[in-house]
Amino acid sequence: MPELRRDPVVGRWVIISTERSRRPSDFASAPVRPQSAVPCVFCPGQESRTPEEILAVRGPGGMPNGPGWQVRVVPNKFPALRIEGELEPAGDGVYDRMNGIGAHEVIIETPDHSTSLADLTSGQVSAVLEVWRQRMVDLQKDTRFEYVSVFKNHGEAAGASLEHPHSQLIATPIVPMMVEQELEGALHHFRMKKRCIWCDVIRQEMQGRSRGGGRLILAEGGFVALCPYAPRFPFETWILPEVHRSSYEDTDGVDPDALAHLLREVLRRMDSVLGDPAWNLSLHSAPLKTPTLDHFHWHLEIIPKLTKVAGFEWGTGFFINPTPPEEAARYLRDGVPRAT
Amino acid sequence: MPELRRDPVVGRWVIISTERSRRPSDFASAPVRPQSAVPCVFCPGQESRTPEEILAVRGPGGMPNGPGWQVRVVPNKFPALRIEGELEPAGDGVYDRMNGIGAHEVIIETPDHSTSLADLTSGQVSAVLEVWRQRMVDLQKDTRFEYVSVFKNHGEAAGASLEHPHSQLIATPIVPMMVEQELEGALHHFRMKKRCIWCDVIRQEMQGRSRGGGRLILAEGGFVALCPYAPRFPFETWILPEVHRSSYEDTDGVDPDALAHLLREVLRRMDSVLGDPAWNLSLHSAPLKTPTLDHFHWHLEIIPKLTKVAGFEWGTGFFINPTPPEEAARYLRDGVPRAT
Repeated sequence: MPELRRDPVVGRWVIISTERSRRPSDFASAPVRPQSAVPCVFCPGQESRTPEEILAVRGPGGMPNGPGWQVRVVPNKFPALRIEGELEPAGDGVYDRMNGIGAHEVIIETPDHSTSLADLTSGQVSAVLEVWRQRMVDLQKDTRFEYVSVFKNHGEAAGASLEHPHSQLIATPIVPMMVEQELEGALHHFRMKKRCIWCDVIRQEMQGRSRGGGRLILAEGGFVALCPYAPRFPFETWILPEVHRSSYEDTDGVDPDALAHLLREVLRRMDSVLGDPAWNLSLHSAPLKTPTLDHFHWHLEIIPKLTKVAGFEWGTGFFINPTPPEEAARYLRDGVPRAT
Repeated sequence: MPELRRDPVVGRWVIISTERSRRPSDFASAPVRPQSAVPCVFCPGQESRTPEEILAVRGPGGMPNGPGWQVRVVPNKFPALRIEGELEPAGDGVYDRMNGIGAHEVIIETPDHSTSLADLTSGQVSAVLEVWRQRMVDLQKDTRFEYVSVFKNHGEAAGASLEHPHSQLIATPIVPMMVEQELEGALHHFRMKKRCIWCDVIRQEMQGRSRGGGRLILAEGGFVALCPYAPRFPFETWILPEVHRSSYEDTDGVDPDALAHLLREVLRRMDSVLGDPAWNLSLHSAPLKTPTLDHFHWHLEIIPKLTKVAGFEWGTGFFINPTPPEEAARYLRDGVPRAT
């Protein structure tokens, strides 16, 4: 029997469609493998082909915009938003607009063109996560911005136009709609119960583990990886700090290295279970001007690209998911990480 | 300069990204063309391969589940939801669920395998639109259902798994999130202004026409086709009745043949301008149990499949659209319909 399930945060119902049940091997997706051998614009030695770097992690003696870096941040060459200018909000009859002001940056995660985030060492992943944090802290100083979205498209099917491992961030003068919806749903829960909804979710999922697994994938070093109760997509996975923290930038009492280790482990298991799928990752953190919130809990969302989104989903916001999260979590719990 | 624009109904902001501006010829999409010649499960003479028909438009003398039909409605063989059973809503800690009860039907739009909705006659399109209406009226009698979503996936890239022209409907015991958001935004506007927001939009867009075009594509026979002010996707197009009607089923004072004519014309222009793209269509109508609303205005949304949705969009609900709707509308206004 198919099931309708409600996401406890935003209230979105999804259809868990058992009649269309799909195991990992039923998803025909082209594995993500680097194709090109030539140095690309993100490769070492090609630094002059990008806009001037904003930040880089490099060994002693290295020069800005030269080689020798481990992680490098540059402005997006074709930015969705522009950094210079004023917002100038204006109305036009029933409509509202403002200038497209924002930051759009690329985080080049490694000098090695032919690898992937999952195949970096924990230390390298940790350096990437630290660079995300530093950029968020820096962009917070720009009072025009309300939010920084950090995200990653892995593989062409997930929207990546360059295969060299990289993530991106976009700072916007608007808090994105989905974050607003999360804030609103979470505040409603908090007002009723005086508890953070994600803390409640973690507590319930940790109990699920003791009852034979449930939706928990892994809990280690103060972080939890789980398949959410009402996932839009098969094998959708969230990673959250076990302690309540609303802002990703706030590392007080959390161990960023443990996050790097867990994220890497989850990505490796996805590669192993699903055959190197394309995926999207996005970081949900509190808005820049309200970094400490009792009702919001930062988290990472990872979505493997396995199904097509079609008219029903676009028209309704209702998703049909052919893989129950309990099954996805079981695969990801047992998934033997790919050998290096 | 890129622009941030707010959808006046749901409040979703989008980025109109002029730095990434794309004309019709810049979108590399595989044209939708029927490939298979063999009779498929939806072809005449293959009626026994589908579940028993629910409704058919056929000439005199024809037998149910035999050939001779013009439009035929059958249950989806792999339904997302099941028609038999009770909802049995239940809680599980912080979570909520119910049985996956609903209707999932396929509307086979023509006996001709190798055509498309755009290539049917106006009369044939009108018959399809009338069948949608009849199914909605019938499903409204089932008190378990709150909403009927009618949608169409045209082309594999848009999620169509069978190429024989067909649309689908899913009746759900839940009003979908996106419709709820539209209802909420529209009610807010109505409470302030005592006017329907879509009526306001139509009024403003019709004035835009007199000032040299704007976002209006076509207004004919009491229906309006336009590119919305804050579209998520390039060439996104809405069709609305000019008079206020909240429910698609309510044909009082509107001319369904004129809708068929306009829809067909818009689809033909899209084919002509964009080279037979894949697209999704969805019907937004009032919930079944509140068919007459002063603040809701039914409409069709058509989304050509031209860009990839990636991590930023999935993580934030914020969309980057490389084609300003004024430009899209200009192309669709001037687009010479493909010769038949």
